[in-house]
Amino acid sequence: MTQSLVGGLQPPYYTAVFTSIRPDDPEGYAETAAKLNALVEDIPGFLGHEAARTPGGIGITVAYFRDLDGLTAWQHHPDHMAAKRYGREHWYESYRVHIGKVERTYGFDREDRENHEDRQGRQNPEMPHDRDVVDDRD
Amino acid sequence: MTQSLVGGLQPPYYTAVFTSIRPDDPEGYAETAAKLNALVEDIPGFLGHEAARTPGGIGITVAYFRDLDGLTAWQHHPDHMAAKRYGREHWYESYRVHIGKVERTYGFDREDRENHEDRQGRQNPEMPHDRDVVDDRD
Repeated sequence: MTQSLVGGLQPPYYTAVFTSIRPDDPEGYAETAAKLNALVEDIPGFLGHEAARTPGGIGITVAYFRDLDGLTAWQHHPDHMAAKRYGREHWYESYRVHIGKVERTYGFDREDRENHEDRQGRQNPEMPHDRDVVDDRD
Repeated sequence: MTQSLVGGLQPPYYTAVFTSIRPDDPEGYAETAAKLNALVEDIPGFLGHEAARTPGGIGITVAYFRDLDGLTAWQHHPDHMAAKRYGREHWYESYRVHIGKVERTYGFDREDRENHEDRQGRQNPEMPHDRDVVDDRD
């Protein structure tokens, strides 16, 4: 399980948002997911991914790519396509893929605030913090 | 909990992807989330949202908007901003917001395949199905 958020992303970059509904633990799913998670690391321009799933509910995976070429290479990777084809037959009730270009990002890290001067620069020097981006407009 | 995926989206549209790490059930979170989920429905151009969270892990929410004005209106909604401010103080270890423009979407619904002629047109007449978009390129 991914336990930390992807950081250090500088727009523009591309996201593939994959949302799905499937049973909780379908046979073969975990092994295939682990294999794909390793394979995607080799795609040029892959910047990271995050995954979440509510038991009994919706799953959402977001994969980040530097450019559309890398994202498309992953969408067309033979093992990825085979896994999705298998998933359509065996795992998924439904899914959606949304391919987007990100022009703006901001965020928050508790550590930054608690130890601001020490950590902010090292963690993610250019990502705007949400206080700066949103709260200043109150 | 949202139990079905948002459907019928026609590009271009905009997404706010919110990824976060927080404790499993922080005090006041569920009530605030329910209130915000109701409020966002009134934002012009709001097209729906999906949420997922792995217990003990990452949470991801994707909100869909017809245009950037609607998305920005939601980002700047006073109750939304107040909730995020409170969340930074009390709930979140970290979060990221990625604002993107979606130019391409496709998906799959099991019902479509099992009852193709009956359902495809009614469910989502223009969203390409993944077999059409990806598998044809094998």
